[in-house]
Amino acid sequence: MKIKAYAVMEKGGKLTPFCYEKALGKNDALVRITHCSIARGDIQFMNDDWGDTKFPVVPGHEIVGIVEDIGANVTGLQPGDRVGIGYQQTACFKCEFCRAGNEQFCPDQQVIGVHCHGGLAEHIITDSRFVFKLPASLDAARSAPLMSSGVTVYTAIRKANLPDNAVTGVLGAGGLGLLAARFLQKMGHQVSAFSHSPGKKQLIEQSGAAYLDSSNESNLSSLQQKFDFILSTLNVDFNINTYLKLLKPQGKFGVVASPLQQQPISIGLLYDYAQRTIYGNYVGSRKDMVDTLDFSARNNMECMVEVLPFSEMDTAIATLRNQHTPVRLVLEHR
Amino acid sequence: MKIKAYAVMEKGGKLTPFCYEKALGKNDALVRITHCSIARGDIQFMNDDWGDTKFPVVPGHEIVGIVEDIGANVTGLQPGDRVGIGYQQTACFKCEFCRAGNEQFCPDQQVIGVHCHGGLAEHIITDSRFVFKLPASLDAARSAPLMSSGVTVYTAIRKANLPDNAVTGVLGAGGLGLLAARFLQKMGHQVSAFSHSPGKKQLIEQSGAAYLDSSNESNLSSLQQKFDFILSTLNVDFNINTYLKLLKPQGKFGVVASPLQQQPISIGLLYDYAQRTIYGNYVGSRKDMVDTLDFSARNNMECMVEVLPFSEMDTAIATLRNQHTPVRLVLEHR
Repeated sequence: MKIKAYAVMEKGGKLTPFCYEKALGKNDALVRITHCSIARGDIQFMNDDWGDTKFPVVPGHEIVGIVEDIGANVTGLQPGDRVGIGYQQTACFKCEFCRAGNEQFCPDQQVIGVHCHGGLAEHIITDSRFVFKLPASLDAARSAPLMSSGVTVYTAIRKANLPDNAVTGVLGAGGLGLLAARFLQKMGHQVSAFSHSPGKKQLIEQSGAAYLDSSNESNLSSLQQKFDFILSTLNVDFNINTYLKLLKPQGKFGVVASPLQQQPISIGLLYDYAQRTIYGNYVGSRKDMVDTLDFSARNNMECMVEVLPFSEMDTAIATLRNQHTPVRLVLEHR
Repeated sequence: MKIKAYAVMEKGGKLTPFCYEKALGKNDALVRITHCSIARGDIQFMNDDWGDTKFPVVPGHEIVGIVEDIGANVTGLQPGDRVGIGYQQTACFKCEFCRAGNEQFCPDQQVIGVHCHGGLAEHIITDSRFVFKLPASLDAARSAPLMSSGVTVYTAIRKANLPDNAVTGVLGAGGLGLLAARFLQKMGHQVSAFSHSPGKKQLIEQSGAAYLDSSNESNLSSLQQKFDFILSTLNVDFNINTYLKLLKPQGKFGVVASPLQQQPISIGLLYDYAQRTIYGNYVGSRKDMVDTLDFSARNNMECMVEVLPFSEMDTAIATLRNQHTPVRLVLEHR
């Protein structure tokens, strides 16, 4: 079928109306898009910051919509179902990673922006095994960010296997950081968010976290060995050693974003009287996605979003290009 | 009682005969020392490289001997038992770490060189809960290195929770590295040892590992994403990013030693399509010590050692100060 979308035709270009053909395969679902978030990651795709964008590109990888049709082999989805779709569109289901339930590492996976088109469109056709039913209690617009940012930080936190009422921290109070703080708070942990921006204090407190001013590192020295877990969502330079010292023995430092430049690390902080761990988390598996949505539904996880009509996508892009937005922008077909 | 030992009286000094008084507490064991290894870590204590050595210091923290007496409360040990003693001499047994069986993080622990005297002596009095029976099949001299280096690398490897027949690597082919290679091989894994020194090829192969020349990093590019686990025993600068790239998705990088200088790390290598982990391991708990000794006995783990009489301790120290020794030096009372 012909899918009406909005694409960027070349590196750094503007969004323009764009049509592409895609057939409904026997494992696929056709979804009419109702909501698609637009975030800094999409701008990075449009700018080809990672060098793997395939132009023309239809951005948008946090998608909510309604199933309109399904392929012959599809089970578990029906036309009319309200669903969410994330970054990954399919996998081989044969490799060691797929067989172990870690489809996010499949070497033959297809992802939006590199192998196929995304959610700034009227429809999308996706392998139904990467189309997830939205629990009824979740609001469509406020759930869109769960489909990539949400599953990423939720899975990163779950990997830490935290004790009850853990002492946790989040580095960075952008989209990922505020979502992480909210998940941690909903899981019953003590949460602090480290930020250089006093202006974010109110937002941080709304997300359920205490604000910790990290602009002066000497403020943090009294917190050494106090934290079970710190999650970094920073994509700017930071002193990782400062934060490793804040971890208790056996404490864990998760990363879901990274600065472009290498950062100096004192390797001794990882073992000397301490045995600390640093780990990365890359999105999540299909099971992680289901867990993220289940947890969010059971705990009334509401992402902080600003909803705009699709017709204002250029405004949304300009906002993202020109300034940091503390809440996620979600486009809505009205 | 009066304990005859050899101490260094001030930073960087030489070993001289030294006596100190210590009473047998109700939880203690008095052990007549038969063997004590002497390693680079002892030289670092004698040099006060970490700034926490308390002089006079009796070095030696890999000790084997025979129980001569026990305190009133001691169970599980008898005079005549052949035992091993490591770096840690006691703990509070009340803190959160002790209660969880992780006595190595106890903030009130006592360790050799900082709080009490070590194994270059005729006797030692140690909390019996840190005195471990040596399985009968283990040779005394060849077991001494298990008491600190052994438990450190064994525990580091166990923390990786490796699949059967994993692809593993060891960075550095000194005392820790060769022991780690041997443990990995005995556990049934494929082992490579990365070394800049072609002269170590034979020793590496004796330990059951394949030699990989890491002097030219471009040699390693064909190995990207091949390893489940790499353990670094290096205390010199190295490019951690080179080795992170060799790890498969979900691969783990353990560290049990570190360069003095900070090393630049590309944090993105920890998550992007990969989800890698770096963790440190600091010695081990009492349970880890028992596991190390049990595994070693069941698998005929023989450390490569050179045995010298205690009277040649100055020669041993000079050897350690002046050159790298590929095998562990163990002093023996004859």
